[in-house]
Amino acid sequence: MSINMVADHARWPIANDPIFEISGKAKKAIAEHGKENVIDATLGALYDDNGNLLCMNSVYSTLKGLPNEKIAAYAPLAGTPDYLKSVEKACFGDYKPNAYIRAIATPGGTGSIKHGICNYTNEGDTILIADWFWSPYNTISEEIGRKVECFTMFNEEGNFNIVSFKEHFEALMAKQGRVVTILNTPAHNPTGYSVSDEEWDEILNILKNAAKNTDNRVILLVDTAYIDYAGQGQERRKFFKKFSNLPENLFVIIGYSMSKGYTMYGMRSGAAIGISSNEDLVIEFQYSCMHSGRANWSNGTRGAMETMSTIYADPEKLTAYQNEVVTNKKMLQERAKIFVEEAKKIGLKTLPYRDGFFITIAHPEPKKVMNELTKYNLFLVSLKKGIRFAICAVSSEKCRKAPAIIKKVIDDLGSVR
Amino acid sequence: MSINMVADHARWPIANDPIFEISGKAKKAIAEHGKENVIDATLGALYDDNGNLLCMNSVYSTLKGLPNEKIAAYAPLAGTPDYLKSVEKACFGDYKPNAYIRAIATPGGTGSIKHGICNYTNEGDTILIADWFWSPYNTISEEIGRKVECFTMFNEEGNFNIVSFKEHFEALMAKQGRVVTILNTPAHNPTGYSVSDEEWDEILNILKNAAKNTDNRVILLVDTAYIDYAGQGQERRKFFKKFSNLPENLFVIIGYSMSKGYTMYGMRSGAAIGISSNEDLVIEFQYSCMHSGRANWSNGTRGAMETMSTIYADPEKLTAYQNEVVTNKKMLQERAKIFVEEAKKIGLKTLPYRDGFFITIAHPEPKKVMNELTKYNLFLVSLKKGIRFAICAVSSEKCRKAPAIIKKVIDDLGSVR
Repeated sequence: MSINMVADHARWPIANDPIFEISGKAKKAIAEHGKENVIDATLGALYDDNGNLLCMNSVYSTLKGLPNEKIAAYAPLAGTPDYLKSVEKACFGDYKPNAYIRAIATPGGTGSIKHGICNYTNEGDTILIADWFWSPYNTISEEIGRKVECFTMFNEEGNFNIVSFKEHFEALMAKQGRVVTILNTPAHNPTGYSVSDEEWDEILNILKNAAKNTDNRVILLVDTAYIDYAGQGQERRKFFKKFSNLPENLFVIIGYSMSKGYTMYGMRSGAAIGISSNEDLVIEFQYSCMHSGRANWSNGTRGAMETMSTIYADPEKLTAYQNEVVTNKKMLQERAKIFVEEAKKIGLKTLPYRDGFFITIAHPEPKKVMNELTKYNLFLVSLKKGIRFAICAVSSEKCRKAPAIIKKVIDDLGSVR
Repeated sequence: MSINMVADHARWPIANDPIFEISGKAKKAIAEHGKENVIDATLGALYDDNGNLLCMNSVYSTLKGLPNEKIAAYAPLAGTPDYLKSVEKACFGDYKPNAYIRAIATPGGTGSIKHGICNYTNEGDTILIADWFWSPYNTISEEIGRKVECFTMFNEEGNFNIVSFKEHFEALMAKQGRVVTILNTPAHNPTGYSVSDEEWDEILNILKNAAKNTDNRVILLVDTAYIDYAGQGQERRKFFKKFSNLPENLFVIIGYSMSKGYTMYGMRSGAAIGISSNEDLVIEFQYSCMHSGRANWSNGTRGAMETMSTIYADPEKLTAYQNEVVTNKKMLQERAKIFVEEAKKIGLKTLPYRDGFFITIAHPEPKKVMNELTKYNLFLVSLKKGIRFAICAVSSEKCRKAPAIIKKVIDDLGSVR
């Protein structure tokens, strides 16, 4: 290129989204060999057993039944009041923390992560995340001159590595006096891990301990994008109660998304929820995020907000919606059970899965494994330290077949080295 | 507040949106005195003569007729290819410039303005805008540490003040070596001005002259949010042709929005369109904006994109849509004609209106005028240097009545001083 026109900070590698690329290869294979002969485990959305995108009937009949003006009109900058109330109900369920709470609409969960990373750090700051992470945490950070640092997510028993978390968190806090840390739980992307209630206590003890120094600013960002597919009943929401009566310099932000729980990925609706023992600080949160919203995307998608508040205002609709969620969750859990059992049976080691859309297998050469698997018409996504299999997109039958194929490819690669 | 939790750069005044506030007062007055006795000229959306939000039938029947999966699925980061092709057709009409062109989906027009301001400037830089401007230009800039500087938009004849534009642009360029300037035309918000083709030639001469210094970076951002309501036929799109064969260090970005032209304000869909004589530079533009999109809001609203591409793929639907646009435009132009003629008749001086949603009256004490007008049940928005009357939201009948009320209030205030 002879010259550049964009400013230096905005120049990024000209590279295509790798998920999009492998996903394109899967589509090509399906066209060539037929649906039944291809396993496409690349996509981060829920598909039925016939390979069709699952669109919840309770959601889309509500959306399409809205009067046009409820889709057409601008939403207020913060989101419609009814939507924000519904978001709190949907997110916390029976475990709303005893604290001041303010929600603000965002485009999907992404917008809430952006708010948390941008507004609670200074330029040059480092964010703390797990070493298995959703790559946009890094994209969001690098775009605005922030860095990410990773703690080791799992200990040798396959539980949350509280030692590594403590070490990294306290070192960063000593250096910066202000730390934003992101925990993607329950139903972590990409591993499917859910932090247990006991682990939450340990994490919060570390954060509270740092907050004893009143000059410190502790910000916990919990990305709950997959929460509706976690656990059996409400038990995976219990940890929210632990955000009651926290020290005022320990601020919690929940990243909430309608994408997965409402199968409304393309409608771009979510929320950032601020939680504090000090009312001033949730107001500060709200106005800070409103300014950022105005300065980035303006306001949120009205039709998605109205869909959610219409469902929440009508007990019959709400029941129908909740029943659909349970049906979908059961389908997903059945697939996970089959995959995990099969993997165990044949000796394919997966990372500790508890809930959610993905199962991950650690591997030192993930790209090689991904490419090799395409020869067997099995398509999945390579991460930095392993491969991600999207059970959300693959039928039970294929979830039973996949582990043996993956095991064979990994074994073959091992014997070559 | 005892402490702050947000970072210093993210702390903003705790103040409500002033448009939302005055608009709330108008709604209260309607509830109290009846629709027919209140003139609510606060809203920036098209309303029919009965005060109902206009939702285009061709648009909403298409949206609601889409298969659910076309609304539910994530769109690609750049936008669906069919959408991007439709955007180019819709935006340029018969006047597509002879240049390399790449479009990228954004949430409404706002996202495209954000891309242009952020990615083509450095921190601390100053953006050049007109002294009558849409306030989010300032919000977007201040959020990311950019400043705005204003040239005087009108000369004494009520035409584009090319002298002031030249002076400010060249001074900024000498200082920064890189200038982003935003022109909101045709159908400027808030004045309704449209830059003429002759004025465009003068503007482009100034920009081309600056581009003679190959170290300079000239970025022209044209905000066309209201273009579908400008002119009679295609004549207000002629200026696009002038972006052919520009020097490579003069880059043009068009901010395109579906909000007004499709009455889809709440669906958050638009595009940034990069135009250059150098293909590398539109590719650079595309990847820079894709990174920013991923790092801010992820992807765009799929349902809006599919609505537009479905309409553009079907000549019958396209004709129905275009006929609706013409009907709406005629209604708007009739209101404008009535307001302007009436104002002229009684001696109320407006800023030069040519097209669009708003008519503006300059005044040194706009807040006072706005508040005084509420006593007559006339509600409009106060700007820094005047008041904005939204003809888009007010019936012809009320457009005839309003100028006299405004004139009276301004005269009364004048005699008090």
